Amino acid sequence: MPIIWVGRLADKRRKRDMAKQPLVTLLTDFGTADPYVAAMKGVILSACPTATIVDISHDVPPHDVLAAAIVLAQAAPYFPPDTLHMVVVDPGVGTGRRILAGSFGRQRFLLPDNGVIGFVAAALPVESLVVVREAEQLRQAAASMTFHGRDIFAPLAGRILNGLAISKLGPPAGSYKAIELPAPREDAGRVAGQVIYVDRFGNLISNISAELVSRRWHSPAGVRVGCGNQQAIPFRLTYAQAAEGEALALFDSMGLLEVAVNRDRACDVLAAGVGSEVMVVEAPGESR
Amino acid sequence: MPIIWVGRLADKRRKRDMAKQPLVTLLTDFGTADPYVAAMKGVILSACPTATIVDISHDVPPHDVLAAAIVLAQAAPYFPPDTLHMVVVDPGVGTGRRILAGSFGRQRFLLPDNGVIGFVAAALPVESLVVVREAEQLRQAAASMTFHGRDIFAPLAGRILNGLAISKLGPPAGSYKAIELPAPREDAGRVAGQVIYVDRFGNLISNISAELVSRRWHSPAGVRVGCGNQQAIPFRLTYAQAAEGEALALFDSMGLLEVAVNRDRACDVLAAGVGSEVMVVEAPGESR
Amino acid sequence: MPIIWVGRLADKRRKRDMAKQPLVTLLTDFGTADPYVAAMKGVILSACPTATIVDISHDVPPHDVLAAAIVLAQAAPYFPPDTLHMVVVDPGVGTGRRILAGSFGRQRFLLPDNGVIGFVAAALPVESLVVVREAEQLRQAAASMTFHGRDIFAPLAGRILNGLAISKLGPPAGSYKAIELPAPREDAGRVAGQVIYVDRFGNLISNISAELVSRRWHSPAGVRVGCGNQQAIPFRLTYAQAAEGEALALFDSMGLLEVAVNRDRACDVLAAGVGSEVMVVEAPGESR
Repeated sequence: MPIIWVGRLADKRRKRDMAKQPLVTLLTDFGTADPYVAAMKGVILSACPTATIVDISHDVPPHDVLAAAIVLAQAAPYFPPDTLHMVVVDPGVGTGRRILAGSFGRQRFLLPDNGVIGFVAAALPVESLVVVREAEQLRQAAASMTFHGRDIFAPLAGRILNGLAISKLGPPAGSYKAIELPAPREDAGRVAGQVIYVDRFGNLISNISAELVSRRWHSPAGVRVGCGNQQAIPFRLTYAQAAEGEALALFDSMGLLEVAVNRDRACDVLAAGVGSEVMVVEAPGESR
Repeated sequence: MPIIWVGRLADKRRKRDMAKQPLVTLLTDFGTADPYVAAMKGVILSACPTATIVDISHDVPPHDVLAAAIVLAQAAPYFPPDTLHMVVVDPGVGTGRRILAGSFGRQRFLLPDNGVIGFVAAALPVESLVVVREAEQLRQAAASMTFHGRDIFAPLAGRILNGLAISKLGPPAGSYKAIELPAPREDAGRVAGQVIYVDRFGNLISNISAELVSRRWHSPAGVRVGCGNQQAIPFRLTYAQAAEGEALALFDSMGLLEVAVNRDRACDVLAAGVGSEVMVVEAPGESR
Repeated sequence: MPIIWVGRLADKRRKRDMAKQPLVTLLTDFGTADPYVAAMKGVILSACPTATIVDISHDVPPHDVLAAAIVLAQAAPYFPPDTLHMVVVDPGVGTGRRILAGSFGRQRFLLPDNGVIGFVAAALPVESLVVVREAEQLRQAAASMTFHGRDIFAPLAGRILNGLAISKLGPPAGSYKAIELPAPREDAGRVAGQVIYVDRFGNLISNISAELVSRRWHSPAGVRVGCGNQQAIPFRLTYAQAAEGEALALFDSMGLLEVAVNRDRACDVLAAGVGSEVMVVEAPGESR
């Protein structure tokens, strides 16, 4: 009994703390020129005037669920526990796709069932995931058939920020959509992956993890990377270890193999982009 | 007498509440690369350290008062009552144009007399509108002749956020500038309007309202829309009801006729943009 | 003794005030599409949940330390005292460059030793400048070799926002790197400078100060400006004093000579950009 009582007390305290510093991030493909993001913020602040709202990005390429997932997975883990991440990259708006709410690695998420959550689940331990029951009522009540971000997601975010527990939002989701990210192929002596994201600096981020490379080779000194028009790019620890204009490979802040050019745009210098092959091979004269 | 007393009390309470959660939005054509928006935010936070500042947009095309009005009218109604919307899209900076402050539909506005407020007045009930008397003093005191956003609007916003009532700012404005938005033309069997805004997704937003169309035709099933290079675009309820790459018309979240292409850019697919004609006609075999 | 006691009390009060309204600005070249800025904000809010974060700009051209310095110098002076400005435009990331923290003109700064601080020091009185001792420990502890903004700068910002005094961060910096901004050349009858920044409106901002011009000539009426393809641009007080499409020179909100075209882009109309010569000469028939 005392345990239950303590649990309730802790719940109450957590609820009170959340109500004091409710924090929500937004990730959309809406851009920042149009009124859409501001309208969502207005709805959130109308429901929860003390909310702090942080933009993760609104410049995900339109309808690009994979880019949204990559951006989310790189940003969300750095926020305080109980932060709510609302993701509205939603090519299925207007279809019957479900709206999910979940808690993963002490971060909370509210987003369409479009594959993003599967990507996050690979990075953060899943604590709970439910189908938001109220979404359907909100959809029917909405003036607009086209702006679920403002009419469904933002009101739901306001209620969660005001203390409504994720678990109260609906029944467990069971299975969910996952993004089909092609796994790197492993042959004798080489690993073949691809570029999955190009950032503002023109850096090429691949689907090859540090873990995979270090399992195959004792030291990155013994391997070379091929990408675009260059086939023997060496590993470095920092951009500055390469000469200006020289290509390098490194493990980025997400633990993924990244191909860069010191002080230049790798995507232009190497003529590569999303989908380009990234090949890791043993350097001549080296062995596993 | 008790009524007056209650009124005063309510005024005091409202003032106190505003001081607790003062909320201001910014809408400009300054972009976000330059230091201009940040300097305005610094001035506002210096005057009112507890202010919450929300960006509506800073990417209105330079000097485009109509785009600013459309963006404002779509975002402002969703904010909490008493939110202050500061609009600095001001091609007349440095001329004698007046600065207005107003209360419309429980939202508050601070902006140059450049036509935007007329657009807002069409959407929200006007409660009060004054000419800001102090603007002239601030102009003369300002170090800069070119940056009224920082030197005039931001200090005024700070004072309003700190509790100064709109009505105390100056005398009633009387008439004000209005944007000349061409009204749709109505002929027998058709309505001709035009594209007034293109959003990030390439959606074409017209000046034809849902109200006008529904007054003319019993059901959108009986009408077709012509725009750019397509002349028989059907009405749908959501983007997803059209096949991928197919054009559709719908009433957007603002209640205006919008021409879109499911998962593609209507402006490119239809070769249309701001100013392009949008024609609503009866479908063959249908009658009013 | 009483003085010391008062000093302590004031220190405590300042610390308490800062803890109540901790304000930090961010200035980077990270763009806003990628997850990098959000990850830094997450780290700052994890350390200091009550922090208010204001973006100065994230669209400084990649690695452009001069543009960062110009933007910072134009925005920082307008923020409340004790605001912390965190600048991560850092082409030297991964090299041994030092991290500095300083107090200038009651504003506080945290940034790499890359020249930006020298530019700020020319505009604001230097109060203190230290080398951040803990940066090296944070660097060694960081999972990532490439993202000092998230792994070093943001945690340090959190500690400063929580009340850690700049002076406690490390030993005095002594000398520091300064940006080599070419000074305008002065000949008999003319001053030759150059364009150092082009803003969103296409305005051309030069390195020629109002102070220098007014020292040389009694009145701007007596001088003309040459820039790009026009050689006799007159001085005006506001943009609107020139006819639409006409070039003008004025002293901008920073006190620097700016060449503009009323309601058009000077950089396009005059075919000029960063590095273009700006020449101030006596108008024919005028004398000093």
